Amino acid sequence: MASPAFLPELATQVVVPVAAVVGIAFAVLQWVLVSKVKLSPEPRRGDGSSGKAGAGASEYLIEEEEGLNEHNVVVKCAEIQNAISEGATSFLFTEYKYVGLFMSIFAVLIFLFLGSVEGFSTKSQPCHYSKGKTCKPALANALFSTIAFVLGAVTSLVSGFLGMKIATYANARTTLEARKGVGKAFITAFRSGAVMGFLLAASGLFVLYIAINLFGIYYGDDWEGLYEAITGYGLGGSSMALFGRVGGGIYTKAADVGADLVGKVERNIPEDDPRNPAVIADNVGDNVGDIAGMGSDLFGSYAESSCAALVVASISSFGINHEFTPMLYPLLISSVGIVACLITTLFATDFFEIKAVDEIEPALKKQLIISTVVMTIGIALVSWLGLPYTFTIFNFGAQKTVYNWQLFLCVAVGLWAGLVIGFVTEYYTSNAYSPVQDVADSCRTGAATNVIFGLALGYKSVIIPIFAIAFSIFLSFSLAAMYGVAVAALGMLSTIATGLSIDAYGPISDNAGGIAEMAGMSHRIRERTDALDAAGNTTAAIGKGFAIGSAALVSLALFGAFVSRAEISTVDVLTPKVFIGLIVGAMLPYWFSAMTMKSVGSAALKMVEEVRRQFNNIPGLMEGTTKPDYATCVKISTDASIKEMIPPGALVMLTPLIVGILFGVETLSGVLAGALVSGVQIAISASNTGGAWDNAKKYIEAGASEHARTLGPKGSDPHKAAVIGDTIGDPLKDTSGPSLNILIKLMAVESLVFAPFFATHGGILFKWL
Amino acid sequence: MASPAFLPELATQVVVPVAAVVGIAFAVLQWVLVSKVKLSPEPRRGDGSSGKAGAGASEYLIEEEEGLNEHNVVVKCAEIQNAISEGATSFLFTEYKYVGLFMSIFAVLIFLFLGSVEGFSTKSQPCHYSKGKTCKPALANALFSTIAFVLGAVTSLVSGFLGMKIATYANARTTLEARKGVGKAFITAFRSGAVMGFLLAASGLFVLYIAINLFGIYYGDDWEGLYEAITGYGLGGSSMALFGRVGGGIYTKAADVGADLVGKVERNIPEDDPRNPAVIADNVGDNVGDIAGMGSDLFGSYAESSCAALVVASISSFGINHEFTPMLYPLLISSVGIVACLITTLFATDFFEIKAVDEIEPALKKQLIISTVVMTIGIALVSWLGLPYTFTIFNFGAQKTVYNWQLFLCVAVGLWAGLVIGFVTEYYTSNAYSPVQDVADSCRTGAATNVIFGLALGYKSVIIPIFAIAFSIFLSFSLAAMYGVAVAALGMLSTIATGLSIDAYGPISDNAGGIAEMAGMSHRIRERTDALDAAGNTTAAIGKGFAIGSAALVSLALFGAFVSRAEISTVDVLTPKVFIGLIVGAMLPYWFSAMTMKSVGSAALKMVEEVRRQFNNIPGLMEGTTKPDYATCVKISTDASIKEMIPPGALVMLTPLIVGILFGVETLSGVLAGALVSGVQIAISASNTGGAWDNAKKYIEAGASEHARTLGPKGSDPHKAAVIGDTIGDPLKDTSGPSLNILIKLMAVESLVFAPFFATHGGILFKWL
Repeated sequence: MASPAFLPELATQVVVPVAAVVGIAFAVLQWVLVSKVKLSPEPRRGDGSSGKAGAGASEYLIEEEEGLNEHNVVVKCAEIQNAISEGATSFLFTEYKYVGLFMSIFAVLIFLFLGSVEGFSTKSQPCHYSKGKTCKPALANALFSTIAFVLGAVTSLVSGFLGMKIATYANARTTLEARKGVGKAFITAFRSGAVMGFLLAASGLFVLYIAINLFGIYYGDDWEGLYEAITGYGLGGSSMALFGRVGGGIYTKAADVGADLVGKVERNIPEDDPRNPAVIADNVGDNVGDIAGMGSDLFGSYAESSCAALVVASISSFGINHEFTPMLYPLLISSVGIVACLITTLFATDFFEIKAVDEIEPALKKQLIISTVVMTIGIALVSWLGLPYTFTIFNFGAQKTVYNWQLFLCVAVGLWAGLVIGFVTEYYTSNAYSPVQDVADSCRTGAATNVIFGLALGYKSVIIPIFAIAFSIFLSFSLAAMYGVAVAALGMLSTIATGLSIDAYGPISDNAGGIAEMAGMSHRIRERTDALDAAGNTTAAIGKGFAIGSAALVSLALFGAFVSRAEISTVDVLTPKVFIGLIVGAMLPYWFSAMTMKSVGSAALKMVEEVRRQFNNIPGLMEGTTKPDYATCVKISTDASIKEMIPPGALVMLTPLIVGILFGVETLSGVLAGALVSGVQIAISASNTGGAWDNAKKYIEAGASEHARTLGPKGSDPHKAAVIGDTIGDPLKDTSGPSLNILIKLMAVESLVFAPFFATHGGILFKWL
Repeated sequence: MASPAFLPELATQVVVPVAAVVGIAFAVLQWVLVSKVKLSPEPRRGDGSSGKAGAGASEYLIEEEEGLNEHNVVVKCAEIQNAISEGATSFLFTEYKYVGLFMSIFAVLIFLFLGSVEGFSTKSQPCHYSKGKTCKPALANALFSTIAFVLGAVTSLVSGFLGMKIATYANARTTLEARKGVGKAFITAFRSGAVMGFLLAASGLFVLYIAINLFGIYYGDDWEGLYEAITGYGLGGSSMALFGRVGGGIYTKAADVGADLVGKVERNIPEDDPRNPAVIADNVGDNVGDIAGMGSDLFGSYAESSCAALVVASISSFGINHEFTPMLYPLLISSVGIVACLITTLFATDFFEIKAVDEIEPALKKQLIISTVVMTIGIALVSWLGLPYTFTIFNFGAQKTVYNWQLFLCVAVGLWAGLVIGFVTEYYTSNAYSPVQDVADSCRTGAATNVIFGLALGYKSVIIPIFAIAFSIFLSFSLAAMYGVAVAALGMLSTIATGLSIDAYGPISDNAGGIAEMAGMSHRIRERTDALDAAGNTTAAIGKGFAIGSAALVSLALFGAFVSRAEISTVDVLTPKVFIGLIVGAMLPYWFSAMTMKSVGSAALKMVEEVRRQFNNIPGLMEGTTKPDYATCVKISTDASIKEMIPPGALVMLTPLIVGILFGVETLSGVLAGALVSGVQIAISASNTGGAWDNAKKYIEAGASEHARTLGPKGSDPHKAAVIGDTIGDPLKDTSGPSLNILIKLMAVESLVFAPFFATHGGILFKWL
């Protein structure tokens, strides 16, 4: 074995927290820049929101005629923003109340289950992997796992909440900036997205780093126990994400579908028309579902992939004796990722400037490419400095020698597979390419062909991402077993700050458009925000692609860690215990989707009835002389989502417990593998089908090409067919699809956390038979 | 081991062929009874089609006023029937020409690949399983496999073709009988279904029996080689079925969707209106897709499950030394199945009589229950008489002792699981229950909510069938390893004659309704055929449920046989080779569905254009004074389906070859397992979603309850939304969904046939790396 010629412990102890702090500082800076756009009605002078006062000032003059200083518009925007922000805050508080209760109960369960592994004994035990050494008692692991769980849940909650706050802070500002041109509006929306992206990536890293160091005081050199306890962090983050995604997803789509069905289809009023009673609920939904939910989700992915990598690392022998730096290799990757994303962001906000509508999508795409290229260098650096030249890792009982360049390949393949998935997703969901245009064209013969073509598109879009995922898995698995898969997942998520910035940019632009419509701003402004929004739809799909791809890798890594921890050496499909797990596991995503889609459908029906009631009973509503009752619609969405998020949440949270306790770890392995390979497909196809329908509709509405104009305009039969497709796609792409990655990951991380318990006390049904 | 107190060889040699002949004779008898309904316009006297002249005569008088003797109507019915029959025959001939070419090439491939296993040596080789014995050379196996393949393909082809002939022979006769009452029409349709069901089950058994005996002359006591060669029969049957299902499925749905989109939606003319140019193509489609395609499909399932059971049996040691009777246990089950179904059929045609519309569905359901109960007794008998009390079987290297009562349990659990799947399917697709009624209700808010609820229903309908399949697998697997699973599949298919009768009954009734409409018969007649058809929709869904459930079990058994033959002892998910196979395999059903759905969509678009063109350009068409150009529409469907069936067909046929040759048997195992666990879910959900939409539409149209009437009548907004759902469901339930079972089975049986080749020469990519 070569000498450990890597970064000394002290350097690592500096690099990680510094990167985290830099990330947080950068987020704050972006926020300060966004806050320069004033939402108070005073006439502004020398506005510097773009960071380039000269260019800004000249544009300022040009765009004066757009009504920059109109007192009313600004006041109206501020009002609407307040309404949205209040609605979102009040929903999140209600949601957190229920979820908090659930989490507390679950925390107690974790403690009791894990504590019981060795009968709540306070004596130290022989280690599982480091033979001959003594490790901390199971009771300590139970306690620290519980603490880590709470920590993960709270970090996820705060991430989601702050994201929502920033988004609702930024949306009206984006609208106002749109008056000065599409470039200004883009920068405002993008900066706001970056606030969320960096805050989340950096604080996730920071909390994890601190937890490892604090727990380490107790654990000393017992890395097994330490990282086993740390997995609780991933479970906490993901559990919170589940409820955030499902609750938020139901909220947003119930409101969206309800608003569209009556407003657009029956009453023929535009989207986001202030006369529509569900319009505020719809905009609130964007913020609680697409922002807070997605933030929690990606934070969960990040936390889980880190934990998976850490726990596999702890049962491997890096260097000669668990050196500190290689043990923190996963965190080093994330640290470099923050820096790489920081550089990338400057390309969007400072190095170049967007001048025309058709530059938006390329700019966002460039973000993905730049971050991937920069990060590849970063990974090479970390792998060279942070790892010994060669070391051994565990591979289900057997030992395996790994070189540091092999680990570089593992991380890099994950990173680049993410890019491939991103581009394929873009190809299938952007209306610049033939797939979406074909779907739009099929609207000529009505909604039915639109749906058939859309579903076929979603199914087809699965092919290349799956090959990309399979290739990454094969390479990383062959090179470094489960540890390779774990760091490949981490590689895909290493540019999370950029991914989240782009992702959050979407709903912010969507809301900005909504506010422009509600504030009665000119058609030209609305066109600009629509262009921002269309690009946002595609990037949202790309973001979902990343989330799903990384979820697949993360779950596999967690699955591998679980299997190691549960002391199974093979998961043989040719045993009945495993096979029934496999087929039932493959069914779970369908069960889950059935629940979430039905929830959206039922909640939307209630919303439709309320909106119809208001249109029929409130005199002057259609004429715009009376205000609708927004609050009732907000309440319907809130109640429905709180009530309806419980069954799917329970399905995901309870399945591993029930299967593990009754059928044991082999069947549970089957369930995890089945849910993984089946869920990935549904998740990808659902989110791409939905994204394609949405953009097919926008393609017809925008009428940018000869072909598109033959299908339009708004209100034509093909457009009506496209609206139906868009509505069907809503729950697919924003509720059931993205929730499925959480299903996959959460079941895996939960199994891992409870693995010691299942290994000791699980499988009672088979034992009894 | 107990003494071999089972049926002597001679008795077995008598029972199997006699059962087959009895089945064929019964089919002929049913055909004779159907043929008594005259399609020539002479006034008939003393018609005995029900077999009860007395009752028939009295009804005859009552229904006289329906126009029994109207010369015109009978002539018109005969004309339409001829047109349908000619269209179907001509399509099938075209299809068979292309498929024949493909099959010939594939037969050569089989011979070359399998012959090359031992370098085309003509020397005998040591056996794989019976250590110390000598088996026939690989070249002989290659030759006999090829012969068996051709035999299977031809039997499948003939089955499908005859089924189509009978169906087109029966549909106008059903229409004419509907004038005498719903009971008469039901019996005619059901008898015609029975002709197909019994012909197919019996001839499948007969050909297999003869092949075993003829091949046996050469093979002697080399059961391994014999049954290895016999698997070619399953492959041939299934390959033919693939093209039949896919080609027929695209044909029927292109025509159906095209006809509906212009006729029902744009022109507001009823379904099957003779003015619609695509109406003949639509009716032809029912016969080539739902009849010929489905016949080939279920024949394939039957052939494969028999082959799987036989091949596993051959590598097990029954009795002391491969006694003849236990080796033919799988065929004995099928023989008893024919007798059980024969008894069951009499309950529908002779013991009871249907008098009212609402008795149809219960009568069909009773068929399922009766056949299951009778067959359970039959299985007990066969297991007691045909098997030694105890014997050993192979279980991936290890030996396992099995009792005959355990094998009884294996077959029985498959049989009863089929019944459970049937009932669950009925619950989710019949409009007598709340799931379909909820879907119908969601049409109130438009097509979008209809689609959302329908998709959710399909996803939900997967849950119980998967648990039923998992339970059967667990039980049969635990009791008798892969042999148990194989006979469980055979158990589910043992009542295939009844299943097929019920299944074929559906499209016959559908066509009968079409003919009534086209012949301009009275509303009352149309109502009767509609009632027959609605029940047929549900039973079609049930039939698909059976097909999918048995496909899951069959594939697992074939998979097990493949693994044994390829000499793999574990398929460990925790190896990269297997895992990438698993995730890519789980993707294949999506790829396949994308192709088939897009094909239907594109073909339907062409059909829509042609139908629109005719309505616009042929003067007097809408007024009914000019005849449309049916032939062009038939040609569009034919061309589209022939062209479009090739890519999905190639995907399924080539995947096992490519994976096996390049990546080897471990990855191929993963692919098979992945495709199986993922495909089953999509297949079930697609066919139930489609069935539910179809019946939701029928629920609104029939307006049988207070609730239904609030949604109707035809032409109302909810009804229009329901029509959209129905149209989307068409390719799901009749093209992509049912083709997926063939995908699952075919890949497994193909892998099994090529297993000796893959084991010797496969995996060149990994070897090369």
